Amino acid sequence: MTLQRPTKRTLVEQIVAQLEQLIENGTWPVGERIPAEPELVKELGVSRNTIREAIHALIHAGLLRTRQGDGTYVCSASSLKPVLSRRLERSKLSETLEVRSALEQEGARLAARRRTPEDIGKIRSAYEACVRAEASGDIELHVQADYAFHKEIIAAAHNSILSDLYDSISEAVRQVVTYGSSRLCLLRLHSELNARLVESIANRDEDRSAEAVREYIDASRSILLQDTQGGNEQHHE
Amino acid sequence: MTLQRPTKRTLVEQIVAQLEQLIENGTWPVGERIPAEPELVKELGVSRNTIREAIHALIHAGLLRTRQGDGTYVCSASSLKPVLSRRLERSKLSETLEVRSALEQEGARLAARRRTPEDIGKIRSAYEACVRAEASGDIELHVQADYAFHKEIIAAAHNSILSDLYDSISEAVRQVVTYGSSRLCLLRLHSELNARLVESIANRDEDRSAEAVREYIDASRSILLQDTQGGNEQHHE
Repeated sequence: MTLQRPTKRTLVEQIVAQLEQLIENGTWPVGERIPAEPELVKELGVSRNTIREAIHALIHAGLLRTRQGDGTYVCSASSLKPVLSRRLERSKLSETLEVRSALEQEGARLAARRRTPEDIGKIRSAYEACVRAEASGDIELHVQADYAFHKEIIAAAHNSILSDLYDSISEAVRQVVTYGSSRLCLLRLHSELNARLVESIANRDEDRSAEAVREYIDASRSILLQDTQGGNEQHHE
Repeated sequence: MTLQRPTKRTLVEQIVAQLEQLIENGTWPVGERIPAEPELVKELGVSRNTIREAIHALIHAGLLRTRQGDGTYVCSASSLKPVLSRRLERSKLSETLEVRSALEQEGARLAARRRTPEDIGKIRSAYEACVRAEASGDIELHVQADYAFHKEIIAAAHNSILSDLYDSISEAVRQVVTYGSSRLCLLRLHSELNARLVESIANRDEDRSAEAVREYIDASRSILLQDTQGGNEQHHE
């Protein structure tokens, strides 16, 4: 084993890790401006260059964004999301849908196992909001309500990595679904299967919960891949 | 909408994306030294500062590593893996295992659907290597054979994002399983269930494949969480 001289790199890495944690635990929430360089220099006791390099690293990692003449802002609370989003942009839509299916099935299973009375209350409210949004005929509202409903289910699984991964992936999928017709088909399909999903989770039926997810994802997959023409060769954007 | 002046940032981002792609598609394989700064400056037609910042970004992203006085080397082919590994280090082991279960179940399902005759040949060979490793009594060899077997199954799912995520996560789990007794228990358990998994995939039985995965992951979860003491509160490392 050879001795290693401590380098500036490791100092920057330490600062990166510290700032990353402030962002991930919400001390610096998304949308907030972070303290100016001189303040960070004073607080952390390191050079201006070290701070600057650490901030650049976090900008590249997609956690911070600089607004010219207006400081640096937090733009994502998860270091996973920007990297995963970039990875998904280069991937086939069908692959992305399969990974979402994996996460959502297990999410539904775990929700069926762990949902508290409070969780199931939130899931039911979110489901009712979907029904109302559907009745209103406002597609945008319906899409949002549907998304919120599925997020409540994942939340009831009580697994933060699963939630993080699911968020990143469903955002990537949402970016693709921007046209009216397939959205409408998907939503009609969902409202039927969503009711079954709610009941399976309420009844703590893990297999049936996962099955309901599989069914609507299989169906949405064929609608989406058809609509975006080209099936397996379709890439995001 | 306000007009945006093109900034140096976007230039760096372009270089980062280009270099990232060279790494991810294997043009610059893991372990290789990348071209020196002057060469990149010449090839890409941008300033030395731009190149330097792009390389720093990739170092922070965990794709490149600098060896002092010896240039910059590729240390990971996936931008996802370093970020995910860091995220998992801060997570509960039980959460990590659940995400692995999600990916592995869907992997087994897709493998049952898509495996070519060649895939099933590779899966069977990997399984036989596990059996031989078990007979040899060499635990290290057995662990490696078991890992290789599960990787062949994920490969037969033919989904590159799924493979990437699975790789990162199973590496994180492997880091935790470093002691003899629980390893041995896990391996004994696996060899029984692995045989069933191989046959389910060969018979294209999706439900039974996913079930086999669920069964051994549920069992390994209780062994691991017991052994690492503290169940839900256990963190990696």
